[in-house]
Amino acid sequence: MEGVDYLGDERKKAVFDVEAMKIVWAGSRHAFEVSDRIAKLVANDPGFRKDGRTMLPRKELFKNTLRKAAYAWKRIIELRLSEEEASKLRVYVDEPAYTDLHWGMFVPAIKGQGTDEQQAKWLPLAYKMQIIGCYAQTELGHGSNVQGLETTATFDPHTDEFVIHSPTLTSSKWWPGGLGKVSTHAIVYARLITDGKDHGIHGFIVQLRSLEDHSSLPGITVADIGMKFGNGAYNTMDNGVLRFDHVRIPRNQMLMRVSQVTREGKYKQSDVPRQLVYGTMVYVRQTIVADASSALSRAVCIATRYSAVRRQFGSQNGGPETQVIDYKTQQSRLFPLLASAYAFRFVGEWLKWLYTDVTQRLQANDFSTLPEAHACTAGLKSLTTSATADGIEECRKLCGGHGYLCSSGLPELFAVYVPACTYEGDNTVLLLQVARFLIKTVSQLGTGKQMVGTTAYMGRMEHLMQCRCDVQRAEDWLKPSQVIEAFEARAARMSVSCARNLSKFANPEEGFAELSADLVEAAVAHCQLIVVSKFIEKLQQDIPGEGVKQQLEVLCGVYYLFLVHKHQGDFLSTSYLTPKQAALANDQLRALYSKVRPNAIALVDAFNYTDHYLGSILGRYDGNVYPKLYEAAWKDPLNESVIPDGYHEYVRPLLKQQLHTAKL
Amino acid sequence: MEGVDYLGDERKKAVFDVEAMKIVWAGSRHAFEVSDRIAKLVANDPGFRKDGRTMLPRKELFKNTLRKAAYAWKRIIELRLSEEEASKLRVYVDEPAYTDLHWGMFVPAIKGQGTDEQQAKWLPLAYKMQIIGCYAQTELGHGSNVQGLETTATFDPHTDEFVIHSPTLTSSKWWPGGLGKVSTHAIVYARLITDGKDHGIHGFIVQLRSLEDHSSLPGITVADIGMKFGNGAYNTMDNGVLRFDHVRIPRNQMLMRVSQVTREGKYKQSDVPRQLVYGTMVYVRQTIVADASSALSRAVCIATRYSAVRRQFGSQNGGPETQVIDYKTQQSRLFPLLASAYAFRFVGEWLKWLYTDVTQRLQANDFSTLPEAHACTAGLKSLTTSATADGIEECRKLCGGHGYLCSSGLPELFAVYVPACTYEGDNTVLLLQVARFLIKTVSQLGTGKQMVGTTAYMGRMEHLMQCRCDVQRAEDWLKPSQVIEAFEARAARMSVSCARNLSKFANPEEGFAELSADLVEAAVAHCQLIVVSKFIEKLQQDIPGEGVKQQLEVLCGVYYLFLVHKHQGDFLSTSYLTPKQAALANDQLRALYSKVRPNAIALVDAFNYTDHYLGSILGRYDGNVYPKLYEAAWKDPLNESVIPDGYHEYVRPLLKQQLHTAKL
Repeated sequence: MEGVDYLGDERKKAVFDVEAMKIVWAGSRHAFEVSDRIAKLVANDPGFRKDGRTMLPRKELFKNTLRKAAYAWKRIIELRLSEEEASKLRVYVDEPAYTDLHWGMFVPAIKGQGTDEQQAKWLPLAYKMQIIGCYAQTELGHGSNVQGLETTATFDPHTDEFVIHSPTLTSSKWWPGGLGKVSTHAIVYARLITDGKDHGIHGFIVQLRSLEDHSSLPGITVADIGMKFGNGAYNTMDNGVLRFDHVRIPRNQMLMRVSQVTREGKYKQSDVPRQLVYGTMVYVRQTIVADASSALSRAVCIATRYSAVRRQFGSQNGGPETQVIDYKTQQSRLFPLLASAYAFRFVGEWLKWLYTDVTQRLQANDFSTLPEAHACTAGLKSLTTSATADGIEECRKLCGGHGYLCSSGLPELFAVYVPACTYEGDNTVLLLQVARFLIKTVSQLGTGKQMVGTTAYMGRMEHLMQCRCDVQRAEDWLKPSQVIEAFEARAARMSVSCARNLSKFANPEEGFAELSADLVEAAVAHCQLIVVSKFIEKLQQDIPGEGVKQQLEVLCGVYYLFLVHKHQGDFLSTSYLTPKQAALANDQLRALYSKVRPNAIALVDAFNYTDHYLGSILGRYDGNVYPKLYEAAWKDPLNESVIPDGYHEYVRPLLKQQLHTAKL
Repeated sequence: MEGVDYLGDERKKAVFDVEAMKIVWAGSRHAFEVSDRIAKLVANDPGFRKDGRTMLPRKELFKNTLRKAAYAWKRIIELRLSEEEASKLRVYVDEPAYTDLHWGMFVPAIKGQGTDEQQAKWLPLAYKMQIIGCYAQTELGHGSNVQGLETTATFDPHTDEFVIHSPTLTSSKWWPGGLGKVSTHAIVYARLITDGKDHGIHGFIVQLRSLEDHSSLPGITVADIGMKFGNGAYNTMDNGVLRFDHVRIPRNQMLMRVSQVTREGKYKQSDVPRQLVYGTMVYVRQTIVADASSALSRAVCIATRYSAVRRQFGSQNGGPETQVIDYKTQQSRLFPLLASAYAFRFVGEWLKWLYTDVTQRLQANDFSTLPEAHACTAGLKSLTTSATADGIEECRKLCGGHGYLCSSGLPELFAVYVPACTYEGDNTVLLLQVARFLIKTVSQLGTGKQMVGTTAYMGRMEHLMQCRCDVQRAEDWLKPSQVIEAFEARAARMSVSCARNLSKFANPEEGFAELSADLVEAAVAHCQLIVVSKFIEKLQQDIPGEGVKQQLEVLCGVYYLFLVHKHQGDFLSTSYLTPKQAALANDQLRALYSKVRPNAIALVDAFNYTDHYLGSILGRYDGNVYPKLYEAAWKDPLNESVIPDGYHEYVRPLLKQQLHTAKL
């Protein structure tokens, strides 16, 4: 059976150059080559196998993750991988582990918030993993609202130390990954108190465990917070709980780049701009958007391939049934997700550019674009993670019953992904931040203030408030300028309408609270406009490869027309579209599905995922699904014996009517 | 800490009689009393504890389920529980088990499809559980399309036997619950072949395992199909795979109520109406709708209580932060789900009536309402299960990060619920059936054919096609007649529009395929009309209890106004509403949220769920969330030791830079 390719015919149908599309997806030839090489390296190394993961009990699962993390580090050293390669390797190992927090949060926090001296002391230890760090911010009772944290760091001038303390149960640190069982150190966020005065939340480097025997240090209570959603998934991570009972650390372990406490206990601010914090947030959220396109594309790849393998109904004269991918109902759910994966990829690419731009401006003390960049990344983080979480589950449903099996890979993909909707800013809270920014922007219209970046369209407010769509035939919906105007008009009108309704309230904050659900919708409209325009901008570039650009144009059309249809209420209620024009959008969308259909398998092949990384029998490259599902079933622990454990105690007595004497 | 009630103040705010509402929710005083008594019986019996379930490895989990199933049966016998009480007890044990299929599918199949003789032989054995049965229909390659099943049952006149055989890998039975490890017998659906002729799919009683030692019988290969989505969840069930290698069964084990095979191998139909099958489908789907309201109400109960406990932001002068339930964004996501739980409860109640009505008519050979009843139950199964699956996940997100912990109960509730979208008819396939029925109904307009039941409104098509909403103030949206007209006009216009577009196709089937996504939307509009009208009808009855009816009116308003807002595109594009009227609906919706707010906790208390049944620390009746979360963390197996398994092998060598010699 090996060597078959049940999807070979599908692959032949494609009318574009798949290899060229792989480069587009990866972002560059270099990025493609690194990804491809490292993905194969991981896939071919038995040390990184992950197929039994969903069956392991927690302790074994976790122990195996410790092994993999160490093995990955060993390979990184042996192969002398670059930083880029090492981080790709961790991606393809595809198992949440304490190292994610060490490299992704602990090290960057010291780099961003530590003084030169602190960096010189701590970074070499961290780079060699002689210490392992995590990032202890959220508390049992405090998530989104960082300013509400209760942990205290009180300066004791007698000993030149901070006393870190958890004054209440709800102040227990709760959730930090890597904290529960592994980290030797943590960046702990606590309320800084000097001389009785509260200076707000600051970061401190605190050692948690002995470097000799790993026991927790005096005054520190630390443990894992228990099982989380899904099989395997984030249960490979030791998210932890941490309480401090008057733990003392030297004064120089407060991260002092932005503010300092002197030997005398005086609190001082340095001249480093505080806005740098926002630069970091832009960076982190930019990576989250990139991750969204990865996660969604994996799910779409699985669902698309299996939709071509699976057949249901429509058999004629005993012939084969119809491939489910040929059903319009399947296409109308699957193809918009395929298009979204590409859309998120390109907006993620653009965000990477935005981050560079913002960083350069910050270094030149230009803070002018920061609020816009901040709102934009907050909104895109929210939009893409929500759509991806829903999209993965939709892909699972699109696989029918078999999507419910762990061997489909989709349950774990979903469970491991959904926290992205909550961490680094709850998605609703973030959209409200965007809305606040939009309302502020609207209020500045006519004041002569320049509208920058993604809000530039608001500068044309007068036109956008009164223009009407001039689509007359379905094909008119393929004109980029037409589409951009539609999304701009919708977003502009929704923001203005919110602003008008807000102005009816005497107390603006009360108004904001009362209308927050509408404000969230306005924010979504603004963010969707960004994604659509960045996709369209991408297509205005030169894109090599036969048929590649044409395929991307089709996907772009699917993406925005799907949104027009889904949100036609917005477009109609703002009177930009007529019902007839909305119906034409829907007709055009259906026509585009037919163009996606023959290219669907090639479009997911372009993601270049190995079977190891996909981790799905339904999504196998060769389409050899059923024999492999059958084979996999036998590996379940329940199948170790024909007669199940418990038969003699609990089934036989029941069948034999002897329960009254059974011990149950 | 025991005896606290952190939600006491919330409970005092309610302006209605909670005890009276409990009766309304349960359906009757009798139903309430039985539920209440059995729920407490289960909750207070340590034999039914379920708190560690999500941490157990598969084999231990399954063994424990076997124990519980036997223990439940023992208690049912000891307490001489009635059938009603026994089935409630299984509900409150709240763990999918082989007994669900035995009682829910195996026994009913014999009752419905077996001859009197067959019933006399098999039912006594099944009632005493001297045999355990399952229902083996779906195959590895065949789910929705029953007519595509490949398993064969070939009559051998020489021995008066059927030969049951799995001719291909894809014909392996796959998914049946209880099959993998426990069932001694199965109802097997196979293609009946006599004398070389294929008579289509029929059911057969096949013994799978020895009643003496539980070993599988000759020619039978049977196993569990492996891990499924979620922790605990359906992994307590032994969904199985089954292959037959020419297994022989006596002729009298074909279920022969509707059709028979004679000793000579002649195939005959009896005069029992085949439509009886549809009666069974109406029954099963009716129970699924009832289950939807249960599952959704559990999730809503958890999210509502925790939203009152949890505080974020809005602290003034160091006072407590705002309860998240006070945020409009939270209300606008949570309260429509609360209203949906009630809406689904009442439509489920009505479906129970419909089933009785259909059954009586069938017995009187009146098949006239069957197509309508069938379409209606198919559509409501689809609508309520999809909304419930999405709603549970939304509730999980509404609990912030902590909803991701298994101890919140929500991950398991979701994982255990989602298959309902796929089993007993994939939700999209069912909506297409509804659409087909609607299009047929539209085509019969003007032919003098009477429109019955839930399609009666189509009889007023002329009015519905041209009427315009006359809402002028937000409060006008509280008039039931206004609302009904709006939903009728929307549903009617969408069906008619689909019918018109279909008529443009030369080949109707091609048109149906091409427009299927639009047809699905028309079907949803029709089904939502049913739910809304049954809720409104319920409120036209006498409902005792202070303030009870008023509260239900508020919830009914939330339910339909939420739908008007969510689907405003439909209402606007069919030109029934103006944008202004849609905005007024939204204003009225917001006003109703404020009326729900003080009653929210009491409205979920009315479900009368025990903490055992809820299985959620976040949803605890007493609101004592944080200490209990903290306590629960320590029970994770990872916390059995301070130093994790694997530290010495995989963490210490890394910290000590000794990986090169480590065995990884």
